[in-house]
Amino acid sequence: MNYKMMGRIIAPLLAIEAFFMIPAVFISLKYGEIVAARALFDTILIILSVVLGLYLLCKDAKKGFYAKEGLATTGIAWIVMSVLGCLPFYMSREIPLFIDALFEMVSGFTTTGSSILCDVEAMSKGLLYWRSFSHWLGGMGVLVFLMAIVPLTHKNEGYAVHILKAESPGPSVGKLVPRVKQSALILYGIYVGLTVINLLFLLAGGMPLFDAICCAYGTAGTGGFGIKNDSMAGYSRYIQNVTAIFMMLFGINFTCYYLILMKRFKEVFKDEELRLYLFFIVASTGLIAINMYRQFDGFNETVSHVFFQVSSIITTTGYATCDFDLWPTFSKTILLFLMISGACAGSTGGGFKVSRILLLKKSLRRNFKKNLNVNEVNKVKVNGSTVNEDVIDNVHGYLIAYVTIVIVSILLLSMDNYPIETNISAVLATFNNIGPGVGLVGPTCNFSLYSPFSKVVMIIDMLAGRLEIFPIFMLFHKKTWGRH
Amino acid sequence: MNYKMMGRIIAPLLAIEAFFMIPAVFISLKYGEIVAARALFDTILIILSVVLGLYLLCKDAKKGFYAKEGLATTGIAWIVMSVLGCLPFYMSREIPLFIDALFEMVSGFTTTGSSILCDVEAMSKGLLYWRSFSHWLGGMGVLVFLMAIVPLTHKNEGYAVHILKAESPGPSVGKLVPRVKQSALILYGIYVGLTVINLLFLLAGGMPLFDAICCAYGTAGTGGFGIKNDSMAGYSRYIQNVTAIFMMLFGINFTCYYLILMKRFKEVFKDEELRLYLFFIVASTGLIAINMYRQFDGFNETVSHVFFQVSSIITTTGYATCDFDLWPTFSKTILLFLMISGACAGSTGGGFKVSRILLLKKSLRRNFKKNLNVNEVNKVKVNGSTVNEDVIDNVHGYLIAYVTIVIVSILLLSMDNYPIETNISAVLATFNNIGPGVGLVGPTCNFSLYSPFSKVVMIIDMLAGRLEIFPIFMLFHKKTWGRH
Repeated sequence: MNYKMMGRIIAPLLAIEAFFMIPAVFISLKYGEIVAARALFDTILIILSVVLGLYLLCKDAKKGFYAKEGLATTGIAWIVMSVLGCLPFYMSREIPLFIDALFEMVSGFTTTGSSILCDVEAMSKGLLYWRSFSHWLGGMGVLVFLMAIVPLTHKNEGYAVHILKAESPGPSVGKLVPRVKQSALILYGIYVGLTVINLLFLLAGGMPLFDAICCAYGTAGTGGFGIKNDSMAGYSRYIQNVTAIFMMLFGINFTCYYLILMKRFKEVFKDEELRLYLFFIVASTGLIAINMYRQFDGFNETVSHVFFQVSSIITTTGYATCDFDLWPTFSKTILLFLMISGACAGSTGGGFKVSRILLLKKSLRRNFKKNLNVNEVNKVKVNGSTVNEDVIDNVHGYLIAYVTIVIVSILLLSMDNYPIETNISAVLATFNNIGPGVGLVGPTCNFSLYSPFSKVVMIIDMLAGRLEIFPIFMLFHKKTWGRH
Repeated sequence: MNYKMMGRIIAPLLAIEAFFMIPAVFISLKYGEIVAARALFDTILIILSVVLGLYLLCKDAKKGFYAKEGLATTGIAWIVMSVLGCLPFYMSREIPLFIDALFEMVSGFTTTGSSILCDVEAMSKGLLYWRSFSHWLGGMGVLVFLMAIVPLTHKNEGYAVHILKAESPGPSVGKLVPRVKQSALILYGIYVGLTVINLLFLLAGGMPLFDAICCAYGTAGTGGFGIKNDSMAGYSRYIQNVTAIFMMLFGINFTCYYLILMKRFKEVFKDEELRLYLFFIVASTGLIAINMYRQFDGFNETVSHVFFQVSSIITTTGYATCDFDLWPTFSKTILLFLMISGACAGSTGGGFKVSRILLLKKSLRRNFKKNLNVNEVNKVKVNGSTVNEDVIDNVHGYLIAYVTIVIVSILLLSMDNYPIETNISAVLATFNNIGPGVGLVGPTCNFSLYSPFSKVVMIIDMLAGRLEIFPIFMLFHKKTWGRH
């Protein structure tokens, strides 16, 4: 394990974190929140001293950086960023317990949106800004951001691709264009562009600037931290609809937007993952709307509310316009499965990913045919091209790891003696980076009821969910820390 | 599809079913239950006329019987047997609704033990006997029984092995000895032997003969139909302990007993599946006992109750000595996962099977190492020998199919608007052939609350669980019914 090289990657990352904390200081000062401004400022100083220390310690890093290092670096970078990033909450005493502050920060960076806060509106504006911004930064990935801004030579292009892969969600995400730096730039370009358009639409609807910025961050990162106690319920129908549509858009593979920019519309239209994703949204909205018809006032209101919730859950954002915990079981069950499905690979959304479901479906079909002794070409194809067997093997591995983590987490949470339904949905909500679950962790409740031990479990789940299991769980494996 | 050959296999099977119904007639007569005796007798006549019809129709069956036919025959045979076998319940009016009678019969043959009866003790003795006996027949498999008693020439040895594989649970069960007939004979020999020993132990504890026979059938088949409303709670501690131990024994791969008879003790001791199975039992009993210590009266009573429940759930039997739905969440969650795990392959127990968990664990480990670029021999080994990649591929396929069926079933059941927890446990309890779940289908409740549609879903789940998905779900696939 090349520790010094790891340090040299994490140092600039932390510098970026400190840099992005500066606006929060000014916001706090503007609103006269002296304690919060002080906590943010002190944290920036702490982060900068860590950065300095890392630079000095890791000056003489040797070369040799492989997939293993790339993955481990990603995992550790996210943990360090969360530990340092949560200090303003803790030092300002706005979140008195360190474990709660860490939970909130990890929930932010991983774009989960699960909160331990009982009264969000009591938090200072500066910290609310930082909390919402963490969604935006975590959504596309801070390492990808680093790739976009640092100069990459041919030499370090090699490790950059490992990091890009580790931080980008999905079974087979690669580069859009041959060079990593250009790929990262395109991704962030699209990301910034869509966020700005979202923001303009919100402002056009008369949303206050601060609210609109925070809301756009939460939507773009598919995070879901609200700045109101009733999440999105208090805003106008227009703002809710805009948010619902943009959540859906941020759940689409960014490659599709790149293809649209390149005017390759046909490929977008034929994309199997995109079609399945849109099918899930339309079918779920339709089924729930039928199931719920009598609960709302007329067709428009029904579709509007249901589409918002479906879009919020499948993209693992977690905003709410109403308490879906009160919905009938059929509707709640659909939402529960949308939580697991998640959005498209290569989007900012979390969950199992639609493309993995697509691959599993095709793999199952092949297995079925093989057992029926049907003689056909034995390849799995997506969008017309053959899928590498390694990718399919990894998806199988992902499913096994996914089920294992869900089972173990539910078991560990059950020691707190809350109902099974609550534990299941708490694990699904954190591991899939959604936010609210059902039962005691439903949209009107929060996660503060759990013990510190359970919170640690959910922190690990959130990180594992965002980084797609491997970069986190390899940290617990002794082979990771050995020599090559 | 060779329909006539299929008919020629199903006909003797139904004859066996009719034959085994005869004792129930005499029991009914002995207890003066005229209506039940009449219903049983009429059913025997109906079955025999179907047998006669099949013989006449399928006299001129052509040769050519492949894996596909073997699997489809198994699936259809179980459905036909259940439809005919449930007639006594329906015709005697002891179960007034046909769908309920079918549910009860499928629950019997698949050794599930889920019941729609509110008052078991009100049922006539003859029908109670038939209900419990169906567990015994379904446990080891009626087709395997057929293999054991019919003469097999070299010619039909080929299709016999397909049927043996379709009906025997587990990822890679084969023949114990080269000939199918001998394998089937050995399996049934061990099965009858263990059942008789179990019966003798129960009689030694002073259990009435009728109760002891029914209890032994339910234990041997790991079925779980009780003949008392309180399941096993009313019997003595001795009888409960005997039953707990025998449930555990019937959950062990019968190959182990064959090896013991052959004095190959070392192989038994080193069997990885057996070790993991015993580990699950010991660990679960220990953890639950610690979690429950204050609820019971002293160490012995705690261990006794907990071991009974663990043994009952992991073997998917479903007997109960107490209402585990009232246990703390941690204990209930452990039981929920034991429901999924199930017993060993090649036993009478259901569930996902310990050997599949073992293979998934090893497959995940290999995948993990591959992604870490560890250079090691890339084979999965169990008990020292390399596992065929096809077997691993099938286990992956099984996991995908398993998760899909669970999700779709939960979604279909949710339309009845009962709590999610109840639906989840109803699906797990039926699909894994356990019997009782938690919540509204807990050990003190029953499945009659669900709608006929949901009962059909659960009937399919029970059959799919017992026959390990493939023989049932291929019946819905058009390729099955085409030509070769």
